[in-house]
Amino acid sequence: MYPSFLAKLIDDFKRLPGVGEKTAERMAFAVLELNEEQVSNFSLDLTNAKKNITNCTYCNSLTDQEECNICRDKTRNSNILCVVESSKDVFLFEKTGKFEGRYFVLNGLISPIDGIGPDELPLKKLMDFIKKNEVKEVIIAVKGTIEGETTALYIKKILENCDVRISRIASGIPVGAEMEYVDSLTLESALLNRKEI
Amino acid sequence: MYPSFLAKLIDDFKRLPGVGEKTAERMAFAVLELNEEQVSNFSLDLTNAKKNITNCTYCNSLTDQEECNICRDKTRNSNILCVVESSKDVFLFEKTGKFEGRYFVLNGLISPIDGIGPDELPLKKLMDFIKKNEVKEVIIAVKGTIEGETTALYIKKILENCDVRISRIASGIPVGAEMEYVDSLTLESALLNRKEI
Repeated sequence: MYPSFLAKLIDDFKRLPGVGEKTAERMAFAVLELNEEQVSNFSLDLTNAKKNITNCTYCNSLTDQEECNICRDKTRNSNILCVVESSKDVFLFEKTGKFEGRYFVLNGLISPIDGIGPDELPLKKLMDFIKKNEVKEVIIAVKGTIEGETTALYIKKILENCDVRISRIASGIPVGAEMEYVDSLTLESALLNRKEI
Repeated sequence: MYPSFLAKLIDDFKRLPGVGEKTAERMAFAVLELNEEQVSNFSLDLTNAKKNITNCTYCNSLTDQEECNICRDKTRNSNILCVVESSKDVFLFEKTGKFEGRYFVLNGLISPIDGIGPDELPLKKLMDFIKKNEVKEVIIAVKGTIEGETTALYIKKILENCDVRISRIASGIPVGAEMEYVDSLTLESALLNRKEI
């Protein structure tokens, strides 16, 4: 039905998360409304991002160089390490502007059901990072699912003999959320982890 | 914060309709997960669509050739013409599979408030199309807004002296919709346009 060039572009958009047929059509039509420079930049940026963005040699976060911006930044406190599941999480924490330490990206979580055991995660590299940078505190900042908790406990276990404090980010009610929308597991956790004020 | 290649790609995605910061980030990260061939095709398809898709010489719909698929299809009934606002509408009607006539795309509607008068629309070309193809019925299939109604009335006026039937697509309750979600202007129209059964 669509001219073939347009049909192909619609299929490309459909590969993106949350984009179904209708949204993909809307986006492809929108591309035709952009000016030529915008479209050729878009086209170039796609291949450039794919070609040039790799994982940082040190922390596995995304970078277009060998070492990511954060690992290269000598003002960051190398003694505090935040361990996250994916590179996306690094940018989420960076947006808070409240963390001055460094990150280590696991690129996955232990998940026996998906066949992902500890050996599939870069835990050896994590140990090396901790030793090399004389890390004093490891903050395990992975989600509160079974996979997240398993991974957190496993990391705690392998760091037993290292002289590091290990913490887990707090779970509780989201700031500003209505109580009625908070699920009961979260409420339970919020109660358990109450803080004196 | 993001590596520059990624930041640029995020900006590109933000130019698409309905895509804000978060969605654009999600899409850019998803691009990194696609394989190289998928990304290079995506990149190529963007420039190809922009470069090759133009308006059909005859009906203004989108095509990658001089004449669109519908105008080229000799089995279509040239005596019935459906006049629509944009090329998108052509594909919407085509999806119903119930229209065998041809289309004419106005690429706009009369809208004094936006400074779009009748002269900005290809009405001369519409007249020529009607004469050349011996159109017997013109279905005005534009939306039921002030701009749509104004455009419909204007087209009716300029076709006064031509020997063509002019109709307007029906307005009424959407098929399958709950009555409580139908606005009162639509209900009024549905009452007015009731049909004996």
